Amino acid sequence: MFGRSYYCGEVNPEAIGEQVSLKGWVQKRRDLGGLIFIDLRDRTGIVQIVVNPEEAKDAWETANRVRSEYVLSIEGTVSKREEGTINPNLKTGSIEVQASAVTVLNASKTPPFQIEDKSDEVSEDVRLKYRYLDLRRPALFNTLKMRSDVTKAIRMFLDEDGFLDVETPILTKSTPEGARDYLVPSRVHEGEFYALPQSPQLFKQLLMVSGFDKYYQIARCFRDEDLRADRQPEFTQVDIETSFMNQDQIMEMAERMMSFVMKEVKGMDISLPLPRMTYAGAMGRFGSDKPDTRFAMELTDVSEQTAGSGFKVFSGAVESGGQVKLINVKGGASKYSRKDIDALTEFVKPYGAKGLAWLKHEEEGLKGPIAKFFAEAEQAALIAPAGSEPGDLLLFVADSKPVVADALGALRLKLGKELGLIDESKFNFLWVVDWPLLEFDEKENRYYAAHHPFTMPAAEDLDKFESDPAGMQAQAYDLVLNGYELGGGSIRIFEKEIQEKMFAILGMSKEQTEDQFGFLLEAFEYGVPPHGGIALGLDRIVMLLAGRTNLRDTIAFPKTASASCVMTDAPGQASDAQLDELHIARKTK
Amino acid sequence: MFGRSYYCGEVNPEAIGEQVSLKGWVQKRRDLGGLIFIDLRDRTGIVQIVVNPEEAKDAWETANRVRSEYVLSIEGTVSKREEGTINPNLKTGSIEVQASAVTVLNASKTPPFQIEDKSDEVSEDVRLKYRYLDLRRPALFNTLKMRSDVTKAIRMFLDEDGFLDVETPILTKSTPEGARDYLVPSRVHEGEFYALPQSPQLFKQLLMVSGFDKYYQIARCFRDEDLRADRQPEFTQVDIETSFMNQDQIMEMAERMMSFVMKEVKGMDISLPLPRMTYAGAMGRFGSDKPDTRFAMELTDVSEQTAGSGFKVFSGAVESGGQVKLINVKGGASKYSRKDIDALTEFVKPYGAKGLAWLKHEEEGLKGPIAKFFAEAEQAALIAPAGSEPGDLLLFVADSKPVVADALGALRLKLGKELGLIDESKFNFLWVVDWPLLEFDEKENRYYAAHHPFTMPAAEDLDKFESDPAGMQAQAYDLVLNGYELGGGSIRIFEKEIQEKMFAILGMSKEQTEDQFGFLLEAFEYGVPPHGGIALGLDRIVMLLAGRTNLRDTIAFPKTASASCVMTDAPGQASDAQLDELHIARKTK
Repeated sequence: MFGRSYYCGEVNPEAIGEQVSLKGWVQKRRDLGGLIFIDLRDRTGIVQIVVNPEEAKDAWETANRVRSEYVLSIEGTVSKREEGTINPNLKTGSIEVQASAVTVLNASKTPPFQIEDKSDEVSEDVRLKYRYLDLRRPALFNTLKMRSDVTKAIRMFLDEDGFLDVETPILTKSTPEGARDYLVPSRVHEGEFYALPQSPQLFKQLLMVSGFDKYYQIARCFRDEDLRADRQPEFTQVDIETSFMNQDQIMEMAERMMSFVMKEVKGMDISLPLPRMTYAGAMGRFGSDKPDTRFAMELTDVSEQTAGSGFKVFSGAVESGGQVKLINVKGGASKYSRKDIDALTEFVKPYGAKGLAWLKHEEEGLKGPIAKFFAEAEQAALIAPAGSEPGDLLLFVADSKPVVADALGALRLKLGKELGLIDESKFNFLWVVDWPLLEFDEKENRYYAAHHPFTMPAAEDLDKFESDPAGMQAQAYDLVLNGYELGGGSIRIFEKEIQEKMFAILGMSKEQTEDQFGFLLEAFEYGVPPHGGIALGLDRIVMLLAGRTNLRDTIAFPKTASASCVMTDAPGQASDAQLDELHIARKTK
Repeated sequence: MFGRSYYCGEVNPEAIGEQVSLKGWVQKRRDLGGLIFIDLRDRTGIVQIVVNPEEAKDAWETANRVRSEYVLSIEGTVSKREEGTINPNLKTGSIEVQASAVTVLNASKTPPFQIEDKSDEVSEDVRLKYRYLDLRRPALFNTLKMRSDVTKAIRMFLDEDGFLDVETPILTKSTPEGARDYLVPSRVHEGEFYALPQSPQLFKQLLMVSGFDKYYQIARCFRDEDLRADRQPEFTQVDIETSFMNQDQIMEMAERMMSFVMKEVKGMDISLPLPRMTYAGAMGRFGSDKPDTRFAMELTDVSEQTAGSGFKVFSGAVESGGQVKLINVKGGASKYSRKDIDALTEFVKPYGAKGLAWLKHEEEGLKGPIAKFFAEAEQAALIAPAGSEPGDLLLFVADSKPVVADALGALRLKLGKELGLIDESKFNFLWVVDWPLLEFDEKENRYYAAHHPFTMPAAEDLDKFESDPAGMQAQAYDLVLNGYELGGGSIRIFEKEIQEKMFAILGMSKEQTEDQFGFLLEAFEYGVPPHGGIALGLDRIVMLLAGRTNLRDTIAFPKTASASCVMTDAPGQASDAQLDELHIARKTK
């Protein structure tokens, strides 16, 4: 019972003639001409078992009562399949195993869905309830295996590069950051609460204060936010911090790491250095701070060309400080009817656009309801920068800069997908740099940190805290892959005075600063090295490398809004005695 | 500012003549004959910098104002030290760096304690408050580095062996196990709570149900228990589970892993297979289920020899079903005065022993207050099994079996330490096997699982659930190192009927079983493979390998009872709004 010669998927022609011992699950049983054929499955694949009643009567009788998902132990001899029965779709398709003994290690009820990749179509609720069966399917297992391979590759790279793997606490003190903290009532400290970390940010900075020099951790992080397909309340971050390295050096290290991962896991060569794009450039050209560069269809600014136009929607937008931009849907004139374009107009509205203007480029020139506002010279002034040719469709949004970017950025992605412009085999990594340091919130009339409050301003902006806070740039960088932000990093503030200025401009009083970050400012008095780092989302890396579209597929036991995943996403009842010990009570409405 | 040729501790004679760039902290500054000498430190060690005002005036002026723990960037040339100034205690002791430029990257206040190993003596409260400074000390840094090296070695071994690294959830459903759970109020599921996992036990078993075959995780676990030097509320477990392997195979794999770790991390060869001892044998010979075998002084059973003795304490103990055992303190007769032995008697009392009898072996025979109860032949019957010789001291405990084991087991360890019998350079690994499956709690009149409720009974005991539960043995194994339990594992129950019997004998009703473990019993219906695993405490492995005695030294940011460790062990206030969202309220007395 306890010996295994091969995994099922790894029995190969070199083993022909060998006595082997195999373990696995029954994928399928067929009776054919008195013989029983069993497809035996494990995590590596499937191998065909043949049971011949003439040669192994007991084995045949056992085999005769097995059903799907029974767990079997098989003894037998590897043999070549006869011509004509070879299955070229199967790794083991040229061999089979002639069983001499079949043992049932465990039986199985009929599973609620077939263990095969096409069961992707089964309702996710059912698959999550029986997660342990869903994970038997090759597509899911292989995604989880890729996750293991990705972390292995990351660790190999970082270990080799002198990084130390250091674990930081999960029970921490709450510090005010972006999202909602999970709180853990303390039994010992009455009335107080731990918080689960949203990131190990402050711990890794303290490790730099300690001279650890190069730190990494595959770190679990937590955000008590509502669930979405692309968001889990617990997620995993490849968390890195280094001392005495500048922005270019950290980016160079991180891109070598990703290139190593791509080579190890996908066998792909990624050419380095990765392209870099400024935040302003990415927003301008793609209407996105995480552009998908697998296809073109860039945004073209025609504000200048339309400022004087008779079409008041355009000239008015420019006049009030906004923009007019277009995207050119190559060959789209014949593909998009007026009704189709109406639908696109509806699509952009949630992004704040009041409408979507359009012109079709026909042999005679630009046509469409607004064509009349553009004389021939004005038309030429649009056609040239858009690179428009007869057959193209030009789609315009005229509005404030952020609305134009959001609306056309989203429209570009939608059109790219529906026109099949995206080469799914491509992995387009790029850096986005030169981010603003602060964002001004009009409603609350205050600044927020665009990245986080520990990000160093650009060296040349250090004197602008009073004179021009909105104009300050950050020493920050985001890594983007195929339109997804994989994560980002920054050079950190390492001088007490700058950190105090930062807290002050974010509206924190001296008391608040002392209360929340006193320990950090005190640490800053004892010889802090220049330092910086980066954090990348592991779940998202795995999702993209595995070609999945749902983040849950990258996690063995994910959480769902409907709380149907076996035991993992269902919190339970607590006893009154437990709550007493924790000094809390349930709140009743 | 952003280039580094070498870590400080790695500048070496081969670099003599090289222009180098170094970064680090000022360990010490000395002025000598007009020159300034700086010991520059980073995580790898120290290098001596020399600044000569004749050759580098600016550098000298900067160097002249630096103090301990300033962060410096140095440019200079590596040169050979003059004879007579060579420091053989320092890796870099034969060279120094003649500085051409000295830049202060950051200043430092005078630290609250010196950054050097002898600061171990500074109060731990102060060192924890300034943890980021304490971690600069080589002894602590190297312990954390060893932790990183140990996990790296474990991962290398398991990756190579086909194990997949799978992350399991931190926010889980509470299941009743030994210790107290940390609870996390759920915002979404009103009035309900997540629990932080005490171990990933059920998740890893579900992964076996999924056919993952070989799983591992360096897993964070949580127990809300009171803090002690050898216990942290969050701890890390090397968590392993495999399918289709029996107890011997799992133990063999685990000991190869530990041997690999010892070779990689300590450069030591551990001879395999490791010794195995039964639970009964360990308790009998060493009075401990985790015996320290680095020294002998085993317990000798003299119940038979003393059953008929005139000394009623001995004969009475045997008569009432107990035991009389002794340990022989070789050469102890002259070392332990009557007063010393009185102190040893006090020492054993907390273990339940009512007293400690003793005899000194003198040339003329056994002497001491109880000697008169033993005639010459009776003395001989004690001397022989104890291997006693003149000069030895025999210490006896007569009591119930558990009290004898506990008292003499503890006494043995104490004497071993104070007599210097323990070779601290030894690493004595061993397995303890053949554990009882159940423990009977007299007070509560019920059975508890000795390991956990998922442990498989020995094959030959499977029919004893009704007839002889107390006599059932478990397919369980503990790995012991130098008297510490590193962890343990077991073959798991993988058949529904056995698991149900197990829950029943633990006193769980059908409803409780269904409520708490319904998902598991349901999973057991769909083809569960035979499986088993092991879990080892990483913190403890690192503590022992690093030769530390305090578990906190193995953790970057540990928790302490006094809540003085910078930001990590101090839970904080939560706002009323936060508590409202979590549907809980603070309980006031």
